[in-house]
Amino acid sequence: MTEFAYRLKSLGTETAFTVSLDATEFAAQGNKVYPFHLGDLDLPTPPNIMEAAVKAMRDGKTGYNPAAGIPQLRDTLAEVVSAERGISYGRNNVVIQPGGKPVISKFIQALMNPGDGVLYPNPGYPIYESQINYHGGQALPYGYIPAAEGFKIDRGQVEDRIDSQTRLFIYNNYQNPIGAESDSGEMEWVAELAQKNNLWVLSDEAYFRIRYMGESQSIASLPGMQERTVILYTFSKTYAMTGWRLGAAIGPADLMKVFAKLNVNDESCTNHFIQYGGIEALTGDQSGAEDLITELKLRRDALALHLNEMDCINCYIPDSTFYLFPDVTELYHAMEASSYEDFRSRVLRETGVSFCTREHFGTPIENEGRKYIRFAYSGIPVDEIEAGMARLKDYWDSFTSVETV
Amino acid sequence: MTEFAYRLKSLGTETAFTVSLDATEFAAQGNKVYPFHLGDLDLPTPPNIMEAAVKAMRDGKTGYNPAAGIPQLRDTLAEVVSAERGISYGRNNVVIQPGGKPVISKFIQALMNPGDGVLYPNPGYPIYESQINYHGGQALPYGYIPAAEGFKIDRGQVEDRIDSQTRLFIYNNYQNPIGAESDSGEMEWVAELAQKNNLWVLSDEAYFRIRYMGESQSIASLPGMQERTVILYTFSKTYAMTGWRLGAAIGPADLMKVFAKLNVNDESCTNHFIQYGGIEALTGDQSGAEDLITELKLRRDALALHLNEMDCINCYIPDSTFYLFPDVTELYHAMEASSYEDFRSRVLRETGVSFCTREHFGTPIENEGRKYIRFAYSGIPVDEIEAGMARLKDYWDSFTSVETV
Repeated sequence: MTEFAYRLKSLGTETAFTVSLDATEFAAQGNKVYPFHLGDLDLPTPPNIMEAAVKAMRDGKTGYNPAAGIPQLRDTLAEVVSAERGISYGRNNVVIQPGGKPVISKFIQALMNPGDGVLYPNPGYPIYESQINYHGGQALPYGYIPAAEGFKIDRGQVEDRIDSQTRLFIYNNYQNPIGAESDSGEMEWVAELAQKNNLWVLSDEAYFRIRYMGESQSIASLPGMQERTVILYTFSKTYAMTGWRLGAAIGPADLMKVFAKLNVNDESCTNHFIQYGGIEALTGDQSGAEDLITELKLRRDALALHLNEMDCINCYIPDSTFYLFPDVTELYHAMEASSYEDFRSRVLRETGVSFCTREHFGTPIENEGRKYIRFAYSGIPVDEIEAGMARLKDYWDSFTSVETV
Repeated sequence: MTEFAYRLKSLGTETAFTVSLDATEFAAQGNKVYPFHLGDLDLPTPPNIMEAAVKAMRDGKTGYNPAAGIPQLRDTLAEVVSAERGISYGRNNVVIQPGGKPVISKFIQALMNPGDGVLYPNPGYPIYESQINYHGGQALPYGYIPAAEGFKIDRGQVEDRIDSQTRLFIYNNYQNPIGAESDSGEMEWVAELAQKNNLWVLSDEAYFRIRYMGESQSIASLPGMQERTVILYTFSKTYAMTGWRLGAAIGPADLMKVFAKLNVNDESCTNHFIQYGGIEALTGDQSGAEDLITELKLRRDALALHLNEMDCINCYIPDSTFYLFPDVTELYHAMEASSYEDFRSRVLRETGVSFCTREHFGTPIENEGRKYIRFAYSGIPVDEIEAGMARLKDYWDSFTSVETV
C-alpha cells in the first residue's frame, strides 16, 4: 500500500525546514544558536488587530463565510491596494486566501497548461519552482546579476529562455532571498516583455510594505499590466501575522472567479473571524506596523554594519525585505568548503550562527560562479545579532588572516 | 487574456451556493424565507474553545507553526480518535489541515493517477466528484437504495463499476445528503471489497459525532483497514466551528508525510492559535458539544414529525447528520415539475421554504427513478421549522388533494 501517485515525484518543498531542524537539534545539545535562518517574525501581531478578531469571534463570526471572503474585507483591501499602488480595483478583483502562498498554486493551476513555460526567479521562493514542476510546466529560472545598486534581473537569461511556449512570468520585486528591487527601467522592461509575449504575471508583493526608504511600486500599475497581473497580497509580513494565514489574490475579475472556485474545492473559505482582524489591520491604527519597520531597520543596520566590517564579505544593503544576501565566495574557497551544506553546517557548529544558503531557494542555475548565503533578521533581536556577528567575525577572520599572511 | 488553463474545464463546484443566493434574493424582496438549504450551523462555538484560542493568540501564537500542525494538537487528536474508534494512532498519523475539505483534494492528489477509477457516493458531497474529474480520474458513482432501516449502498452498482483500474473508494458513513449509515454487514462488505481490490479508502467522518442514538464506528477500525484508510476529521460540525477551518487527515505515517509536503506547497500551515482551540475542544468541557446535539435532536424530531404528517412525503429519520432526505416523487409528478430546479424554485416562491435537491450532490446517475430533496436543520430553530412546515403542508396538500379527488 505504499505506491503513491506519480505526480508526487515532481513535487518540491521548502528545504529550509531542514536548517531549522538542524539548528534546533544543535541548540538541544546545549549550544547557543543565533537564528538567522528563520523567515518568520519574532514580533507580536499589533494588539488592535488581535482585539478586532477576538470581537468578531465572540460576535459569532464562527460559521462559514463566502469562498471569496467577506465582502467588507474584499472592499477594504480593494480600496487600500488601489490607493497604495495607484490602480483601481473593486470587490470582484479580490479573493481572500488562507495566506499569500495559496495564490502561487492557484495562479499556476488557473493559467498554465502542461508543457507551458514559466519564468521564475532563482534564487527565489522555492514554491514557485515546486508548483511549476508539480503541475507539469517547464520551469524557466532567471537569475540576478550583482550591480552597484543591488541585484538586477539577468535580462539576457530571460531573453535566452523565453519562447513561444512561455506563458507566465513570476515577478517578485522586493525579493526573497536576494532583497532585489527593480528600478523603473527594469520594471518597465518586465512589463514590455510580458505584453510583447502575451504573458500573465504573478506579482508576489509579500514585502511591498516592508521597506526602510523610498516607495514601493507594483507592476500592475504600469500601462497595459493590470489586465495580465495577479498580485499576491499577504498580511503576514506587514502586520506580523504569519501564523494567522490571511492573504489574497488580486487580479482581473473573470480570473478571480476561477480562484474562488478553486477555494470552494480546496478549503471552502478562509477563517471567518480573522478577516475582521484584516479589516482592522488595513483601516485601524498603523503604529504597530510602523513599530515593526523601526525595529527591523535597527536590525538590518546592525547586521549590515557587522557583516560589511568583515574583509571576506561583500553585502549590498537593500531598502526592502528582511534579508541580506552576502556574497561569500572568497570565504567559501578559503574554508575549502566541499558544498553549501558543508559550509553552512561547519559555520553553525563553530559559531552557532545559523543561516540558509542559496541552495534553499531553487535548484542552482548551471555555471553559477559566486556563492551566496541568506541572513534573515526578522527572528533575532539586535543584541543577539551583535553577539552572533562577533562569533562569526572571529571564526571567519581566521581563514582570511591565513590567506593574507 | 481570458484563455485560462484547460484543466479548469474539469473543475466542479458546490452548486448549492446558487440556492443560497436565490433564497437571499427572494428574502431581499421582502419575503419570509425558511432556510433548510444551509449546511452550516447557526449555533455558536462553545465559549471554552473560543477562550483557549484567544489566550493562545494573546500569548503570541501568531507566527508560523509546522506544516503538519502543532505537536500538542496532533498528539491530542491521535489519542482522542484512537480512543473513540478503538484504533491506535500516534502523532505521525495526524496532519492538521485548514478544515476537513482539504483532505479530499490531497487524498486524490496523493493516491490517484490520471485514468484511475474512484468509487464515490452519489448523491454525495459534490467536491468528491469535482476533485476526481479535476485530477483526471474516472469518476465511478455509486448510489443508495431505500430500505426499511434507511438507505443502503447499492452494492450491485459498486460491483458493476469496479475493475482493475479502480484504485480509491470514497466512503462517507453518516452521509451528506442522505443521512445513510452502514450496518455492520455493509461496513464489512466495504472493507472486504477494499482489501480484495487493493483500494485506498477515504473515510469522510465529518458527522461521526453528530448522532442522536447508537454509536459511530470507523471503517479504519476493521481488520486490515487502518493501513489503507485516510480519515477525514473535522472540528466543524461537532463543535460548531465551521468558520474556523480546522480539521485533519489521519492515516498511515508515510502517506501523512506526503500530506504535510502538500501543505508546505499549498498553504504553509494552518492558523496557529486556533489549534489551541482545537486542543480545548477535544480535552475540555464537552457540554457545548452535548448542547449542540440536544438542540439538533429537537430540530430533527420537529422536522421529521411534520414532514411525515404529509401524505405525499416519505422520509426515513436517520440517527446521524443534520439532514433529512425525503422522497418527493409523487409530489414532483403531482406538481408537474419540469425539473428539480423548477420544483425547488416554485416551492420557494410559494412557501418561502428553501432547500437543496438531489441535483446539488453530484451528477444524477442514469435511470434514477425517484426524486429526492434535502432538508438541513442545522441553520433553523424549532419554531421556524414548524412555521415553514405549516406553509409547506398547505401548499403540498393542495396538489395531493386534487389527485385524490
